[in-house]
Amino acid sequence: MESQVMQRALSLARRGRYTTSPNPMVGAVILDSHGQIVGEGYHKRPGGPHAEIVALRKAGEKAQGGTLYVTLEPCNHVGRTPPCTEAIIDAGITHVVIAMTDPNPEVKGGGIQRLKQAGITVEVGDGEKTARALNHAFITWSQKRRPYITLKSAMSLDGKVATKTGDSRYITHEKSLAKVHELRRLHDAILVGVGTILADDPALTYRGPKPGRDPIRVILDSHGRTPASARIFQQNSSAPTLIFTTSQSSIDWQRDIFSAGGEVIEVSQDPSGVVDLHEVLAELASRHVLSVLVEGGPRVHASFIAEQLADEWYSFISPIIIGGVAPTPVMGEGIARLADAYPVGPIDVHKMGEDVMIHGLFGSVNTSSSHHIKTQEGLHV
Amino acid sequence: MESQVMQRALSLARRGRYTTSPNPMVGAVILDSHGQIVGEGYHKRPGGPHAEIVALRKAGEKAQGGTLYVTLEPCNHVGRTPPCTEAIIDAGITHVVIAMTDPNPEVKGGGIQRLKQAGITVEVGDGEKTARALNHAFITWSQKRRPYITLKSAMSLDGKVATKTGDSRYITHEKSLAKVHELRRLHDAILVGVGTILADDPALTYRGPKPGRDPIRVILDSHGRTPASARIFQQNSSAPTLIFTTSQSSIDWQRDIFSAGGEVIEVSQDPSGVVDLHEVLAELASRHVLSVLVEGGPRVHASFIAEQLADEWYSFISPIIIGGVAPTPVMGEGIARLADAYPVGPIDVHKMGEDVMIHGLFGSVNTSSSHHIKTQEGLHV
Repeated sequence: MESQVMQRALSLARRGRYTTSPNPMVGAVILDSHGQIVGEGYHKRPGGPHAEIVALRKAGEKAQGGTLYVTLEPCNHVGRTPPCTEAIIDAGITHVVIAMTDPNPEVKGGGIQRLKQAGITVEVGDGEKTARALNHAFITWSQKRRPYITLKSAMSLDGKVATKTGDSRYITHEKSLAKVHELRRLHDAILVGVGTILADDPALTYRGPKPGRDPIRVILDSHGRTPASARIFQQNSSAPTLIFTTSQSSIDWQRDIFSAGGEVIEVSQDPSGVVDLHEVLAELASRHVLSVLVEGGPRVHASFIAEQLADEWYSFISPIIIGGVAPTPVMGEGIARLADAYPVGPIDVHKMGEDVMIHGLFGSVNTSSSHHIKTQEGLHV
Repeated sequence: MESQVMQRALSLARRGRYTTSPNPMVGAVILDSHGQIVGEGYHKRPGGPHAEIVALRKAGEKAQGGTLYVTLEPCNHVGRTPPCTEAIIDAGITHVVIAMTDPNPEVKGGGIQRLKQAGITVEVGDGEKTARALNHAFITWSQKRRPYITLKSAMSLDGKVATKTGDSRYITHEKSLAKVHELRRLHDAILVGVGTILADDPALTYRGPKPGRDPIRVILDSHGRTPASARIFQQNSSAPTLIFTTSQSSIDWQRDIFSAGGEVIEVSQDPSGVVDLHEVLAELASRHVLSVLVEGGPRVHASFIAEQLADEWYSFISPIIIGGVAPTPVMGEGIARLADAYPVGPIDVHKMGEDVMIHGLFGSVNTSSSHHIKTQEGLHV
């Protein structure tokens, strides 16, 4: 477990969770030489001062001979703001405790090295696990050059996302729907397949009680079937609507979507003839989208999972039985042997009003090590 | 909430939960005239003494002028044992507190009336809700002349009970499987469809760590497809295996099953050509089966729900994703409009090792009052 001071710094960092993207959340606490807190701060938004700078300004003279606790390695490069390392050195800080190093392999360790050169003692790892969890989206984006992907599905107690005739609004109840809006608020983008647009014509906006911006709307539409009259185009929203398609969609349709206010982005087809997800995510990453909430449908979920591009899972389960043959949360190809099922977990479970929410991280499936093991086993067959 | 003394009586009653069937669970506590507990007892097994008698024997002389707390109205008829009312009167008890009246409409109130006639004051309703929940199976059997029906299903996080090729053993993990055996131990019978026999060839025995008897095995097999070599016939078990079929099964098959050790029971076909569930349950009730655990498959579950014969639901959910088009917990006809879904609940949710268990009672669907409301609404359309 992290120290109490680092806990404080982490909880300051968390305050930025709706506003820092595409920057990481960072918190900082300064103790003077007697161990008293003399400065605190967190990073609020891109272009704003870094956490260390806010804390140093508050501490002023008292930072002299003091200790800085910071949840992420201080930057050593000139960005929109001057490097934090120089400010720390100039303030006379003598000891720095860092939760985690910079996830970007190109700059990682540079801040620590600069501080040590200046004679400051540096300690790394206090609160690392919590810090990594807090910035999972930033870390994924920095290291894999793709957004962090969260899949969300709502189903009945018997595993259906709709009735056999497609009635699906709404399977879950008020508290679950509120939680979904809270998730939208936390993500840079929402993504659905064109099937969801055609079936439900959703608004895909953030409509929660607290202030928040709309996430970017992303539609996967390989063949150009989204109607220009869809609700995603007809709302007052500062967020753009991006439609990813392939060369299979017509020029006329592309022009209609453009006129309706959507942005059409053509990417390659994957072997099954639909938009290449890796290209979609690379494009989103280049637009500084750090996190995407994938709200279905079942084939879209299946593609993300099969491509090992799924990081996190939310199930909302409503206490009703639908019966019949009807769509389930994840469809696509599916697996044949139970031993090949994709693990999610360890999971946490929450009562959500009448409903239940089950949440977990995709397990070994999307780590490169498990992939290696699979390949090696294959070689020995 | 019930009084503390009645709580004690209810917890004594619960001790009989594995052994009293087809009798109800009953507990009794006797206070002397100073309010001290002087006798306690519970009903252990059919043919054994009733709870009141056990408590009265313990109390002896001290029952004189005392109060009896009992979880069920004392019997007033000669069964395998003499009526309890007379023993209570003879012992000099002056006040009786009863949690619930006898659920059997033919004898209900008779015991209370007899006690009052003898000058004993009687109070009814302390702990009634708990007492009714404890004996839900006995109450259902007494009032509806059918067993209490619990459906159980195990599925993945994406709502599948098997992969697309039918691989289903085991979707859930150790703790869930242990809980299923505990449920088997609590039920008089386990029921599955012939599809489950053909797909999984299960043993359908109780194999938990604690002592317990095997439930009766019940198979629904309208066309006579169960092989005589099935595992259900090949085990040392004191419990019989009943195969319900229709006249569509061949005489040869019926003889083979008989030779294998199974009992074949022919019942009518329902309009869809399969065994009439109401007849099946009436037959089981006549054999003193108070409770049935229905373990699938999806069509069997659907039939019980559609016939409004489902009382309770257990979902075991494993944190894995299977994908594809594969069987779900409840299939059959299913409903078209979400508004017609069958409600379960309020639910309770439990972490079960790696898995999640969701449990609830079927709601208004199987109470006669909601049925009436529906009919009346229909008349006004």
